[in-house]
Amino acid sequence: MTFEITEKFLENLVGFIYENNDSEIKKLFEEVHFADIAEVLDEVNFEEAIYIIKLLDSEKTSEIITELDEDTREKILENLSAKEIAEEVGEMDSDDAADIIGELSIERQKHVINALNDNELAADIKELLSYEEDTAGALMAKELVKVYETWTVAGCMRRIRGQAKEVTRVHSIYVVDKEDKLVGRLSLKDLIIAKSDQKIADISKAKVDAVNVNENVEEVAKIMAKYDLEAIPVVNNNSVLLGRITIDDIVDVLKEEADKDYQMAAGLSQDVDSDDSIFELTRARLPWLFLGLIGGVGAFIIMEGFQDVFSTYATLFFFTPLIAAMAGNVGVQSSAIIVQGLANDDVKGSINSRLLKEMLLAALNGIILAAFLFLFVWIYESRVDLALAISISLVVVVIIAGLIGTFVPLFLNKRGIDPAIATGPFITTSNDIFGILIYFMIAKVILGI
Amino acid sequence: MTFEITEKFLENLVGFIYENNDSEIKKLFEEVHFADIAEVLDEVNFEEAIYIIKLLDSEKTSEIITELDEDTREKILENLSAKEIAEEVGEMDSDDAADIIGELSIERQKHVINALNDNELAADIKELLSYEEDTAGALMAKELVKVYETWTVAGCMRRIRGQAKEVTRVHSIYVVDKEDKLVGRLSLKDLIIAKSDQKIADISKAKVDAVNVNENVEEVAKIMAKYDLEAIPVVNNNSVLLGRITIDDIVDVLKEEADKDYQMAAGLSQDVDSDDSIFELTRARLPWLFLGLIGGVGAFIIMEGFQDVFSTYATLFFFTPLIAAMAGNVGVQSSAIIVQGLANDDVKGSINSRLLKEMLLAALNGIILAAFLFLFVWIYESRVDLALAISISLVVVVIIAGLIGTFVPLFLNKRGIDPAIATGPFITTSNDIFGILIYFMIAKVILGI
Repeated sequence: MTFEITEKFLENLVGFIYENNDSEIKKLFEEVHFADIAEVLDEVNFEEAIYIIKLLDSEKTSEIITELDEDTREKILENLSAKEIAEEVGEMDSDDAADIIGELSIERQKHVINALNDNELAADIKELLSYEEDTAGALMAKELVKVYETWTVAGCMRRIRGQAKEVTRVHSIYVVDKEDKLVGRLSLKDLIIAKSDQKIADISKAKVDAVNVNENVEEVAKIMAKYDLEAIPVVNNNSVLLGRITIDDIVDVLKEEADKDYQMAAGLSQDVDSDDSIFELTRARLPWLFLGLIGGVGAFIIMEGFQDVFSTYATLFFFTPLIAAMAGNVGVQSSAIIVQGLANDDVKGSINSRLLKEMLLAALNGIILAAFLFLFVWIYESRVDLALAISISLVVVVIIAGLIGTFVPLFLNKRGIDPAIATGPFITTSNDIFGILIYFMIAKVILGI
Repeated sequence: MTFEITEKFLENLVGFIYENNDSEIKKLFEEVHFADIAEVLDEVNFEEAIYIIKLLDSEKTSEIITELDEDTREKILENLSAKEIAEEVGEMDSDDAADIIGELSIERQKHVINALNDNELAADIKELLSYEEDTAGALMAKELVKVYETWTVAGCMRRIRGQAKEVTRVHSIYVVDKEDKLVGRLSLKDLIIAKSDQKIADISKAKVDAVNVNENVEEVAKIMAKYDLEAIPVVNNNSVLLGRITIDDIVDVLKEEADKDYQMAAGLSQDVDSDDSIFELTRARLPWLFLGLIGGVGAFIIMEGFQDVFSTYATLFFFTPLIAAMAGNVGVQSSAIIVQGLANDDVKGSINSRLLKEMLLAALNGIILAAFLFLFVWIYESRVDLALAISISLVVVVIIAGLIGTFVPLFLNKRGIDPAIATGPFITTSNDIFGILIYFMIAKVILGI
């Protein structure tokens, strides 16, 4: 089953393209899944990709196009006419069709939609494009199997043969009343084991999970994961059935979500991958690096302010990277736990009790670490007062960094801002500055300077 | 549809438990999904949870138990006898049953399995427990619908009514030969639209994706996401059909995977959440913090080694936090991009070309940042030589930190080690030390000391 893109395969493919040996190319791809063909297109150069797309028939190429890497797809679509794109889109499910068309410029979108033969599909696409990004409406497809509650099982089987041919995976059959409002659901299994003369209303389940068309997709993902759903119907405020979302789209949402959080934790301001241009990567990375620079300058100014201390206690300064690093690490750990907890809806209880727990935890960790540090400084420098100053500072800094790392995401979350912003460079930079400031203030007090 | 755990609900529930008002409690939970009941059990105290479990019938409680938070479940199972657990497990699908039993001690596992009435289930569970953790075998369930290629459609419909009642979601029907080897698949939809006298072998699709029972679950997740599968059969080395994995289990795997990478990036050595005890949290956080401490001590020793520089150029020391922080940030960004690229199979091309690209990128970013820093130091300190030394150091440090951040994950990956280890505190700590060392070496050269 596992198709692998080998050197040999690519060699053969490119060779056939060069010779315009169409039949051999078709044979190469005959048994290959369209997701794999999409990966092949990422490997060959641009002209070769276009050649293959134009050669294979629309039923296959439409699926391939939906699986392509976004950048590759953009380039390919630029080289197809509106009519050619309409031909591909005409073979797609409405959600994929809307996504593809949505990636084009507003101008091109109009041309492609006008070039569509299927008026129903054109209307569906226009409706899907009208919903806000990242909502259930933007993610859903219009294809589904729906039956009216007044039908019998026999009549149902007859009628859904037609509907079922359009729908890639049936999952639940949705039961609606005469106003098209969602009133229940039914599985193919239920239908098979039922008697032919029973009414749909008698065998369907009245309890049906649904999401509102304006619901955020991350919330939809949570619901589907929690209730182990594979498809969920989408309704409007009047319970009218509008479309459905299937689990494969949710799996993609989950993967993108994980990527996004991870990137925020690392300090990347947008979705980049290692194949993007140096310009695009710089644009994503520089903002956070600049924030770090500002933080570093802040640390410099603080240290300069304390430089009179220096002549007497140079050692203090040599420990600033340690203090700053520990503050940063503790802050990142605390914020990561909270951010993940919020994402998994695990964070219960008041903010105060959580801060108290973090304080105890940080105190415990801080004291263990400070004990080691104390021993080191005492042995290395033979100065108890210095060892004490540095160790006590470490404990205090660790506690405060932990509190900041716990409080900031919770605070942002309560204000409706994505708490993941509080991870990564933002936390490390602010904790660096606070850490150094607190360090010197404590040292001043303890060493009486 | 959205069930919410309100204060009122909990108040009523606890009240009813206190009064032993069983009928009211059952009414409260009548329409509630078991995943929601599981969340309620997390909210009430331990005795109340046990009361509810013992009150509701096994069909419902078995589902609730699978949805419980691991820690809550552990406590509850400790308070049930082997026979009571066997009763719950007897209602579960084999994969959930194996997971629950697998969480018990080896001793208790034996007792529970012996207490099972259903010998077939007991055999299935023993088989599932024999597979290594994180493999397809450990994730799969034994329940599936299989038909022999020699049957007719009519005969098939008759026979699968029995099988289908056992299987929660049918998805594909698997076609096997007389040696039980997987030879094809069939959807309920195909079955419905086929003629009763056709043979299964004629309407089934010969091409069927499958995974080997020893395949790693992350690999299985990738395959199912790539081909938009909702279920995948699991076979042994001889293609004999052993079980199947459904997409809801993969969704859980994806969520856990994302959590794990995120935690590694933040420096948490195991799976903790904010509700764990202070001891457990310390055990997860302290190791990485200790690593950071060692790094900080290393930085201290380096700086001390350069202290003769100090009297003349105190300002250099005040900039060490900045240099260390920038090195850390750049390293984290680079490694995050590479680690994500590896996880998404986006990383193509040789290591060398990637390192070269990173070098150019880091040089570009470094020069932009260094330009700002140069202006700042020049204006603030009115010393061109100092400004130059610090700015040039920043560029070099940024380039080297970027190279380390790019190289280390790629290197680990080639050696078969999880590259995500190279993110987080490990990278920040090593980059801190390298950064400071390089900084002083360059400063020494430029300022001629």
